[in-house]
Amino acid sequence: MLQTYLDKALAYSKPFVGEGKLATYIPELAKANINHVGICVMKANGEVYEAGDCDQYFTIQSISKIMTLAIALQTYNYHEIFEKVKMEPSGNAFNSIAELDSNGNIPFNPMINSGAIIISSFLKPRFTFEELLEYMKVLCMDDSLTLNQAVFESERSTGFRNRSIAYLLKSKGILTEDVEETLELYFKLCSIQVTAKSLAGFGLLLANNGIHPFSGERLMDEQVVKTIKTLMLTCGMYDGSGEFAVRIGMPAKSGVGGGLLSFVNGKAGIGLFGPALDEKGNSIAGVKILEYLSKELRLHIFDCDPLI
Amino acid sequence: MLQTYLDKALAYSKPFVGEGKLATYIPELAKANINHVGICVMKANGEVYEAGDCDQYFTIQSISKIMTLAIALQTYNYHEIFEKVKMEPSGNAFNSIAELDSNGNIPFNPMINSGAIIISSFLKPRFTFEELLEYMKVLCMDDSLTLNQAVFESERSTGFRNRSIAYLLKSKGILTEDVEETLELYFKLCSIQVTAKSLAGFGLLLANNGIHPFSGERLMDEQVVKTIKTLMLTCGMYDGSGEFAVRIGMPAKSGVGGGLLSFVNGKAGIGLFGPALDEKGNSIAGVKILEYLSKELRLHIFDCDPLI
Amino acid sequence: MLQTYLDKALAYSKPFVGEGKLATYIPELAKANINHVGICVMKANGEVYEAGDCDQYFTIQSISKIMTLAIALQTYNYHEIFEKVKMEPSGNAFNSIAELDSNGNIPFNPMINSGAIIISSFLKPRFTFEELLEYMKVLCMDDSLTLNQAVFESERSTGFRNRSIAYLLKSKGILTEDVEETLELYFKLCSIQVTAKSLAGFGLLLANNGIHPFSGERLMDEQVVKTIKTLMLTCGMYDGSGEFAVRIGMPAKSGVGGGLLSFVNGKAGIGLFGPALDEKGNSIAGVKILEYLSKELRLHIFDCDPLI
Amino acid sequence: MLQTYLDKALAYSKPFVGEGKLATYIPELAKANINHVGICVMKANGEVYEAGDCDQYFTIQSISKIMTLAIALQTYNYHEIFEKVKMEPSGNAFNSIAELDSNGNIPFNPMINSGAIIISSFLKPRFTFEELLEYMKVLCMDDSLTLNQAVFESERSTGFRNRSIAYLLKSKGILTEDVEETLELYFKLCSIQVTAKSLAGFGLLLANNGIHPFSGERLMDEQVVKTIKTLMLTCGMYDGSGEFAVRIGMPAKSGVGGGLLSFVNGKAGIGLFGPALDEKGNSIAGVKILEYLSKELRLHIFDCDPLI
Repeated sequence: MLQTYLDKALAYSKPFVGEGKLATYIPELAKANINHVGICVMKANGEVYEAGDCDQYFTIQSISKIMTLAIALQTYNYHEIFEKVKMEPSGNAFNSIAELDSNGNIPFNPMINSGAIIISSFLKPRFTFEELLEYMKVLCMDDSLTLNQAVFESERSTGFRNRSIAYLLKSKGILTEDVEETLELYFKLCSIQVTAKSLAGFGLLLANNGIHPFSGERLMDEQVVKTIKTLMLTCGMYDGSGEFAVRIGMPAKSGVGGGLLSFVNGKAGIGLFGPALDEKGNSIAGVKILEYLSKELRLHIFDCDPLI
Repeated sequence: MLQTYLDKALAYSKPFVGEGKLATYIPELAKANINHVGICVMKANGEVYEAGDCDQYFTIQSISKIMTLAIALQTYNYHEIFEKVKMEPSGNAFNSIAELDSNGNIPFNPMINSGAIIISSFLKPRFTFEELLEYMKVLCMDDSLTLNQAVFESERSTGFRNRSIAYLLKSKGILTEDVEETLELYFKLCSIQVTAKSLAGFGLLLANNGIHPFSGERLMDEQVVKTIKTLMLTCGMYDGSGEFAVRIGMPAKSGVGGGLLSFVNGKAGIGLFGPALDEKGNSIAGVKILEYLSKELRLHIFDCDPLI
Repeated sequence: MLQTYLDKALAYSKPFVGEGKLATYIPELAKANINHVGICVMKANGEVYEAGDCDQYFTIQSISKIMTLAIALQTYNYHEIFEKVKMEPSGNAFNSIAELDSNGNIPFNPMINSGAIIISSFLKPRFTFEELLEYMKVLCMDDSLTLNQAVFESERSTGFRNRSIAYLLKSKGILTEDVEETLELYFKLCSIQVTAKSLAGFGLLLANNGIHPFSGERLMDEQVVKTIKTLMLTCGMYDGSGEFAVRIGMPAKSGVGGGLLSFVNGKAGIGLFGPALDEKGNSIAGVKILEYLSKELRLHIFDCDPLI
Repeated sequence: MLQTYLDKALAYSKPFVGEGKLATYIPELAKANINHVGICVMKANGEVYEAGDCDQYFTIQSISKIMTLAIALQTYNYHEIFEKVKMEPSGNAFNSIAELDSNGNIPFNPMINSGAIIISSFLKPRFTFEELLEYMKVLCMDDSLTLNQAVFESERSTGFRNRSIAYLLKSKGILTEDVEETLELYFKLCSIQVTAKSLAGFGLLLANNGIHPFSGERLMDEQVVKTIKTLMLTCGMYDGSGEFAVRIGMPAKSGVGGGLLSFVNGKAGIGLFGPALDEKGNSIAGVKILEYLSKELRLHIFDCDPLI
């Protein structure tokens, strides 16, 4: 039954792919196959449903922002983190600099680059990248995560705007760690390779309130989980977040690698992949699939009776 | 049982009142009694619970933005409205002008002044103020709504920043109606007098998906209701909306008259009143009461098992 | 000899007229003849040189900003004026609003609209428009100045952006006079009809250090004259002021009616007219004529040996 | 006679020193003696007048921006340079970033950091630092110029905001050279040690239209000299440039090391030193001395009859 919905959603999304474009700011990303589309749904009872290109590897990019925030919130005191980054939607592009260039301004939220760089600076003194990769394997319930070395090097050698942001944060005393080392970690975290299924795994962990659905182990505190879920809803889809929340109403986080992570609260994790991006940088097919499922299965946060 | 929670929430909120300030930008608002606090919860089964100063009248101010948006969305085609105002959280103050002063920018959302002025310009050619007042009585299930003439005149004679916003919208061709007439309507809509109970009424209508809980009549389309609920969650608490959503997780809309409107989806409408405002312009007591209820009754949108 | 230079300058400027456009934001201005070009030079010894369309009337527009500043500085204490408007070039468009929308910001200088509206608010309680018109006839040594009623009404009925600016200044307490009355005066002052010769008259008064060249009477204090001359150099040509100062190096003030006023310090006043505007709003022919004269007669402020 | 004016000007300036502060953003600068004040005037006939602490060495800082612009303009085609940096006053702080963060924006002028970094990127592929130091010795007619290694290292290790600016320029494709190498050159050029007399030397070269006053050799083209002189007038004194031009009316360029360079066109170069800075970053004593001389010797650009 759910399988049928996924198949239909996939078919519904396919024709829109042609309107999108691959991310090209990193040469490596432009090598993706623009026609790939895949969805994986993982339910709390262990059932896994898939449709389309679910075995394709792609880099996690901005979706890593929710995992690294989770790790930072598990590692530090809540208030230590939110002294250096706010929780407000920004109204500006994810890589905007202008709004940082005034006295006393800290990044608007951890879903934009400036905020995520701050989160990386919290992680750096506590974890090596390898330790973080292991941590993320646990959170995604997926041992296959690896670093895509080519994408990482591509990001590191072309990430001038992120350097500009990081040095501005450094000059204002918000970023206190070494800039280049912080960015190296940030770029590596963005360059982790995943599949739609890996994303569904983390989605399921969120849906299940931070408790591993099979082992029953709590991996994230309830406050951490609620924080991340809410930030996904208000800020997860770049500067299209507000309209996405109104129209589709599912918490989601996208990445320019074509990944998209969502969940149905208490029920299931959802991972999507489709590298053709709309003008805001969100996966076109991913958005269309969620639109279809939200409507057909009544998954909008303000629908009263979800069918899943 | 619920009564006990309300009483406790009220008691919890009281000591914080002293940290707040009355709105003073309109002389009339400064005449409120800073110690007033009230809450009214109206359930779908008709039960009404109250605590504190629920009979106090106050002006609705920005809370009118959700009712007028509802009426506009019921009156016009969805796309006509959202061609002239976006659905995105803005990251700026509710009365900001700077972000409008660039080519092609339309207001970020209907919860900030520029967006709400546009909504008023949609209503003006279709309704007189008196007709809108009647409409709002129906939506709030409260016949006692009236215009507070003194507050209206106070707003009209001091609303220079709103005039600046409206004339800028006019100069850009976004506002096509007469500016002074549009503002007169806007100021009147902000100056409607309500009680906590009136707000609970509209909250219940939202909670009940737009259907009048007693007559069974549909007063708002489902799409309209979901749009308003989501905008309350992402933009309802001025530039504290993001943090409020994370920490308390209830859709809410506040006004500088001290009112605060929220709801529990599918269950109940909530109206609050407390004219002492925090620095962002939200009712201090109102926020504290919702914080208490959200925690004790597990009402955060991402709590899985609300107790109400 | 000078006549030859003017004739050649006029001929040099003519072919560029086709690249320009008439101002259209006021319907009345769009009725000008785009091919008109005229220059008038008035020397301290009484000699007047003319070439082209020097008898054409046009509205003074922004060039009035230097006369009204002169009158305000003659009327008030220097510091009273400059508490409410700075003397800094702004880097933004003449009608920009964004930079005003922050705490404590006053207009950058009296050559942009926000600053000139403040200057009008200084004049309003002291002078009627008719008195100011008489004052300007004296400063321009020209009795023929009149109000162009059609342009005035056109400006008043379409000046939405100026209203937006004025109401913002009012909301911040910088503009303390009535907004509509202040704007009425401002629009009237912009709608005064002049010829190239009228502009040359005021230019000569500046060149002659504020002393009427024929009567010997001091009409402006030395400090006032130096202030105006310097502001013309740093801010007189909209957001092309910096490049104009570098390349042509003559103090000048332009208006969207096609007028342009300049002078040779100690020597002569220059009035120009050419309603075809470049993209910054400056008279194309006027700029070309000054470019020619600056080069041929070595009139750049940092030329050491002017030939005029 | 001129000596008497200098002595009086020095005495006039001394009491204001206490209101200023040393630059502290670079630890090395904070080691200066806040009471030092010196002035050197060098006339075209070879006469040199000095008063106060003229033998003190200090780092040239932003004053290098006019020398490096001169060298760049002598080396490249005029239009190549001004395709990548405008000539407009900016209205923002010298180290502002916000205005760069929009499409198509290039730095406002070569006197602010972003513009000067672009100028350094023009010089880097053509000159070693040592060659530029030799070039500057010639332009300042002073063989004693050296690199202050401690200041350079201090700037390089703390210049985070300049890095942020440079990486933003790089990300926008305006800066095409290597960022760290460009900044190394930029920081070195700011760290050259000079005396008031060195500044007077370059001032005299400007005053003398680019021709070495003793050898008669042309060192800068006339167009280059006029460009630099005008930019000093419109943008040389940080965001106090407009008011300085109005009140004092002398082209000048200041640096946070306490140096100040001015000139009297066709007559003399002026070098000043006083490390106590006002809130805009200009030497307090330097400004006061120029104010005194401008008034007493009638040196305002719009004074008609200078006494020097």
